[in-house]
Parts: sequence; C-alpha cells; structure tokens
Amino acid sequence: MTFVAELRSDLGPAGILTGSDAAPYLTGQRGLFSGEALAVVRPASVDETARVVQACAAYGVAIVPQGGNTGMSGGAVPTAGDTPMPAIVLSMSRMNRIVSVDPDRWTVTAEAGATIGALQQATDAANRQFAPDWGARGTATVGGAIATNAGGNNVLRYGTMRDQVLGLEAVLADGRVWDGLRALRKDSSGYDLKHLFIGAEGTLGVVTRAVLRLHPATPNAQSALAAISGLGSLMRLLELASARCGGDVTAFELVPDVGLARVCEKLGLSRPLQAGAEFYVLLRLASAEPVSERLGAFLAEASERGWVTDAAVAVTEEHTERLWTIRDELSPMFLWAQHEHGLKFDNAVPIDRLGPYHDEVRRIAAELAPGALTYGFGHVGDGNIHLYVLPTRDEQVEPFLAVRDQLQERIDEVTFRFGGTLSAEHGIGQLLQGRIRPQKPPVEWELMRSVKDALDPQGIMNPHKTLPAGP
Amino acid sequence: MTFVAELRSDLGPAGILTGSDAAPYLTGQRGLFSGEALAVVRPASVDETARVVQACAAYGVAIVPQGGNTGMSGGAVPTAGDTPMPAIVLSMSRMNRIVSVDPDRWTVTAEAGATIGALQQATDAANRQFAPDWGARGTATVGGAIATNAGGNNVLRYGTMRDQVLGLEAVLADGRVWDGLRALRKDSSGYDLKHLFIGAEGTLGVVTRAVLRLHPATPNAQSALAAISGLGSLMRLLELASARCGGDVTAFELVPDVGLARVCEKLGLSRPLQAGAEFYVLLRLASAEPVSERLGAFLAEASERGWVTDAAVAVTEEHTERLWTIRDELSPMFLWAQHEHGLKFDNAVPIDRLGPYHDEVRRIAAELAPGALTYGFGHVGDGNIHLYVLPTRDEQVEPFLAVRDQLQERIDEVTFRFGGTLSAEHGIGQLLQGRIRPQKPPVEWELMRSVKDALDPQGIMNPHKTLPAGP
Repeated sequence: MTFVAELRSDLGPAGILTGSDAAPYLTGQRGLFSGEALAVVRPASVDETARVVQACAAYGVAIVPQGGNTGMSGGAVPTAGDTPMPAIVLSMSRMNRIVSVDPDRWTVTAEAGATIGALQQATDAANRQFAPDWGARGTATVGGAIATNAGGNNVLRYGTMRDQVLGLEAVLADGRVWDGLRALRKDSSGYDLKHLFIGAEGTLGVVTRAVLRLHPATPNAQSALAAISGLGSLMRLLELASARCGGDVTAFELVPDVGLARVCEKLGLSRPLQAGAEFYVLLRLASAEPVSERLGAFLAEASERGWVTDAAVAVTEEHTERLWTIRDELSPMFLWAQHEHGLKFDNAVPIDRLGPYHDEVRRIAAELAPGALTYGFGHVGDGNIHLYVLPTRDEQVEPFLAVRDQLQERIDEVTFRFGGTLSAEHGIGQLLQGRIRPQKPPVEWELMRSVKDALDPQGIMNPHKTLPAGP
Repeated sequence: MTFVAELRSDLGPAGILTGSDAAPYLTGQRGLFSGEALAVVRPASVDETARVVQACAAYGVAIVPQGGNTGMSGGAVPTAGDTPMPAIVLSMSRMNRIVSVDPDRWTVTAEAGATIGALQQATDAANRQFAPDWGARGTATVGGAIATNAGGNNVLRYGTMRDQVLGLEAVLADGRVWDGLRALRKDSSGYDLKHLFIGAEGTLGVVTRAVLRLHPATPNAQSALAAISGLGSLMRLLELASARCGGDVTAFELVPDVGLARVCEKLGLSRPLQAGAEFYVLLRLASAEPVSERLGAFLAEASERGWVTDAAVAVTEEHTERLWTIRDELSPMFLWAQHEHGLKFDNAVPIDRLGPYHDEVRRIAAELAPGALTYGFGHVGDGNIHLYVLPTRDEQVEPFLAVRDQLQERIDEVTFRFGGTLSAEHGIGQLLQGRIRPQKPPVEWELMRSVKDALDPQGIMNPHKTLPAGP
C-alpha cells in the first residue's frame, strides 16, 4: 500500500512494524481488547510524528496513539471489526528521552514514551520526587499517563497526573505541532488548553513531550497497617490523619481481610496482624523530616477513639516491603482463578459516601448473586475504590454468569446515583463506551463532541474511543 | 427597547438596573476601564440566568459577566467605543448563596456571586479551610475567581482557584445549562470540561455554581520576616523551607526594603527589622500542629548558611497583623503619588529564573529610565512577581512618560524571553489583549479560537476580551 510504503521510506525500517512484529501492539492488557492496523508506526521525533499525522490526514487513516500498552480500558489498541477507516498504531516507544531534569525549577521534561520508572530514577538522582507511581511503573509511559489522567498510590498527597503537568507539546489532528512546553506555576493568560489533552485518551491529538512538576524528596517514610472498626470509621480516620500528620499522609489504602489472608497464604507470608477486622487501612507518611513520632501519636489517638482496633507499624525495610507487596497483590486476578468471570470496577464516589456506597453494592450483590464475593480495595483516601464482585469457587461460576450483566447494570446505576464515576483513573477507552453515558448530562457529551469536532474535524484521532457511540 | 423591557418583565425590577443605578457596574477597578451597556441584568437563579442568555442570543446582544467587579484587567466591564454588538452586564451579585458546606466531603458548594470572604467564614465555622485569599476577599466572588483563575496568598500550598474547583455549573452561549456539579477527587471519564471555563474570563459561558475543595483547618500559624542576602538566595531558601517545614509553608512573599520603609513611615509603624537588606521574605507556616519549633529551626539553619541575615518571628497576633499589613500595603499605589504614571506588571517566570529576571528588568529600566524605581514584590514562591517601574518624584514623571511605552515593550519582550507570562493571576481582559500574543505560538491562539467558535459560534460571550484582536 502506498501509504505504508511512504511512511517506511520517510521513517526508515525501525519506524514501521508489520506482521508478527506488530502483533504485541495490537492487543491490550490481559487480552481484553484486540484489533487490526495497517502498521505500527514508531516515530523518533516530534517532526516525524507530525509528518505521520499529516500522512494519515491526507490518506484518511485513523491514528491510535500508544504508550506502554498497559492501559486497562483498551484506549490504546485499535478497535476490532468493521470500522469505516483503516488505522495505524502510533507507538511512542522510540520517543523515550528524558529531555532535562531541572531541580531548581522543580520540573522534569520528557518525551511521551519515557516510562514512569525512568522519570522516578532520574529525578531521585537529583534529590527530587516525581510523584505518580503504580505497579506498571516500568512500562507505563508519560504519554499514556497523561492520556488517561492516571492516578496511583500518591494521589492523596500529590494529585493525579493532571496535577503534575505544567506544560505539554502535542501534534494536532492536522499535523500542526503545538508547543505548549511552559514551566509556569501560575498563568492566567487565556484558555488552559493542556487540560483538554490530559485525559482525552489521544482523541484530540498526540502528546509528544511534557514539562512535569517535581516535589521535595521524602527520605523519611513509614507505613502502617491499621485494623479499623468498620467502613464507618474511614472518613474520621482520614480526617484525624490530616489533622495530626498534615501533608505527610501520602497513601491511605483500603485492604480487606479476605484479600490480606489470601495474599499471605499464596505468598507464604506471615500475617502482619492477626485476624479480627474486616478491613484495614494501609497508611504511609513520608517527609523530609522524621515521621515515626507523628505516626505513633496518630495511631494511639485513633485507637483511643475506637476507630483503630489494632495496628502494625513497619520498622524495617523488609516489613515495609511486605505491607506493600500485600497491597500490590490484592487484585483478585492474582488470588482467585474464577476472577475472569467476575465484575471489575474502577469507581469513585464523593469521599463521604464511600462507606454507604460499598454497603449498597454489597446489598445488591447479595440479592442477585448470593454466593459471590464483594471485594473492594485501593485508594479510598481519594474516594476511589477498586471494586470487584466475583465467584470464588468453580460451582459459583455458572449461576454468577447468569446474573452478571444485570448485576453490572445495577452497580453502574447505584454508582451514578451516588454521584460517582465508572472511571476514576483507568479512562473510558473501549471498555466503558457503552456504559458511561448516564454519568453525565446530555449537554456535557454534546459539549465534548463540539470540542472533538473543532479539534479533529476529520475524526482521525483515535476514533471509537472515549466518546460514547450513538446519538 | 423591546429587549430590555422583556427582561424587566421576566426578572422584575430588582433584576434590571439602568441609568445611574447601572453606573457602578460599568467602570472597573481604579477607573481604568469603562464602557457602555443597555442594562445591568441581575438574575436571581440559574434558570433566570439561562433565560437572560437565551434572550441575548435571540437579540444578538453581547453578555459581560461580572462578579464583584474587583478585576484588575477590565475583563468584567463592557468595552468602550464602537462595537458591532450592544451589550449587557450580567451581574451575578444576587446569586450569592452558599448552597452547602459539606465537612465530611471536604467541599463547599456556592453560587457564583458568593464572596470569597463569605466562603471563608462559612467553612471556618465547620472547621474547614477554603484556601484562596487575597485583599479583596470581601467583594471578590467565586465566579470572578474562577473566571480569572485567581491566585493570592496561599497558592504555594493550596494552588490557584483552578485547583479548588471539583465541579461547576455553567450557562452556555445558547442558554443551555451544563450541570457539572460533581464532587469527585478522581474522575477520568472524558474531557475535563470545567478547565475550559476556569480562566476563560466569561468568554465561553457563565459560571453559575461551583463545588469547591476544602482543606484541613490550620489553627497553628506563625509568620516571620527574614532579611535575605539577595535574590540569589531565594530559591535555596524556598527549598530549605520545603525540606524542613514540608507542606506547612503557606506563604513565601518577597518584600523590598524600599517598600517596607515607606509603608512603616506612612502608617507610623515601627520597622519589624532594622535596615540592612535590600529584600525580605515574609514567610508563613500553618498547620493543625504547633509550628514554632520548625520555623525557628529553619531560620537558624538558613542563617547559618548565610541566606538569611536577620529575622523577626511574630509572637503575638498584633505582631503578625503588622507583618501582613505591611505586605498588604506594599503596592506602589498606596505609597507614591506618581504611581499612576508608572508601569505595572503581574508577571510570572519559571521559579528558578526569578532572580535573573528581576535583575534584567532592573538593567533595562536603569538604561531607559535612569531615575525610576524598579519595584518587585509578592508571591515569589510561585514564580509570580508583582513588578512595577515607576517615577517616585514629580520631576521624574515627564522623562519617564517619554520612555514609558518603549520600556513596557522591552519588559514584555524580556518576560517572554524568560518563558514567562504577563498574566500570572489577573487575567487578560482588556488590559493585555494587545500585548499577550507573543507569549504563545500562533497555533495556540488558533486552537483557542477554534474552541471559542465551537462553544460560542455567535460570539456573544464577553466579546473583545481574552483572545487577542486581529489576525
């Protein structure tokens, strides 16, 4: 095909993958989404990216931008089946340079394909902290994190990826390059357009570079696992932690006992706390100054007030690592073979409604799928709960599958009724396109469509993603 | 006129001001901008606001949204002279209710016309902190602060107004109401459209209500004035403060000795520190916990390192108030009668360039206007400096006026060359329309224009503001 041949002659052989070389780029995480593309195109510079987009605009070829391909919602892989437009995957993997670490400016500037882990390492060496962090840090990229407004473990203290972006550069749908690489803390000079591209999952343009905010290093960190008296204590506990430990609370994660027990069993770890509570909170304080005293005082006070019934403070690195390994392994996909039949949600609700929301989901699940496990964990300090309802024994699978769709619908409904979202940090991609619409009023989707049409009138930027299909 | 009569019959007499009743709404701060309008329209509800906008759309009447009319850039007053479209001022002053304070959700929901001071009072009573704060707190409104992405004294710790907005409601240019009043900490479900309206100075729609983030109360606060060894020490000092006092540093303000001396003389205050330094930093720590010890240790260390040459720690409320009165009175407009002939900038540069930038501005001023005073103060922790070059004696006025325009042009140029902005926190409005263009590449202005055309195709929302005139 002329189009691919042209790109190959422009970018050279390293810039174009087809056939079996292209295959890994066409299927997403856990094989959930898989599609077709004319080629995987790997530009090595902003100029090359712009020329690729110009060629796509000229030939009417769709562009699926891709970072580390660790996305959970299928936003970075092509769609399958009949689509009116052929597509390429635009992999940013060769644009992985860290352009500069500027400690006195408290910024790092990097290309879209640089990994989160590479940024952490480079900035650590300059005694600065790049805050975003999650399990896939070694593969997930700056561009992907911007496209999904990724969250992770440190959001409570430092915000999401959106909050790190001071400036960015993007190639627009017609191939023009917008250089918005500013490094200002304050700027009220017109529409702040970077926010359009953050969280847009590549549907408005391709982010090529970004200037990202750095924070002070926090060499003193301490984690603790606290058994809580119930979900009703969560918000009181968070408030007390904020009051006593201020900005030093960097993580506040919900851990269910059923998951804790299972992880310890699977990995042969001794339990950090004896059973007795249904839920724990994994808390981390981090600061430039020592934090032990504050952590101890906070736990003592929380215990006096009856919100914490038992606690284990990590005093060695090994102990800390054990607590965080438990957290990282909490996903049902590591714990129950039947997980693939279950329902999985990346939901958030207003923080004060988290307990009642969890109760309501559990009530609905008990009603429709009595044997199933309702399982919530994760970033509850942000109102974000990774929520699963799943069978945990083989004989439960069939009855569960019979009610699965209905259960999902009911949980989606209750999420919206609680003022929540189905996508706290994983994006809409392909996964939620058919379910997300009721979260927002029609006017908001119409506004999004107006913006999309204004910035990408040809509709070549990652079509069939993010914006719900249909009228 | 039919149009005004129709609105009057819809909103009632309290909803429409004309003649001398309208006059105060037609002239901005310090009389810099003044324009004409068919009427001042004061809706009392979202529905009324929507009907007013619909009427304007039908009659082709421009809408100038206005909050407390404390803006510095003329964004909220009508333009003067020949304009192709008649205009109304849409005053949000009757929509000033605080809808709810939700301490467990850590939010306050308010109408656009509620004042910053009213929000502070209402949330203080619930043991929560609404962080934005500046001198005009008693008059400036939520809607105006959102429209300009206002900053103020607490940005270093809590961010600008943008960072407080969790959700908002806006009336669009065609009179549709977008209810985006969500209260989620994390939400990655499509384009985050609220960011378009924040900082847009009413050119894309009228913000009617907002859900705003609250922070823990900080009953323990202590301020100190530190004489610094020079602007070269600024960033070292900020870094040390971040390391030793973490998130407790809520203010880091530059105070020039020439201003300090003048304020003390004018108000009959004794100097908090004896002369000897050219610059001071006014620093405030605030926390739920005591801060004195940390503040003392920080100042001792800064002094050992030679960055601080002298310091006064406020130990009484009276002493604290004196320091902040000095800060609040630092503007040349309170200090020198000749200020009105001077040049005034609300600039920001990347934080590491603040010292060199200030030096370069001073060099240019010394070259072009040898007798003039170069005077910078304010929120330097954010890279934002309120910068003035002004004559301070009557005989300097005439020579200054002869070079004024050239000097402004040179300073604008150097600001752009340093990667800075002419509008850190005051907006573009009418003031900067003719000067702001070189800050951003043409592609960015074109993008803004595309968004404007998509959301306001008739061009009735606050025309001749924000977006630069001309091609």
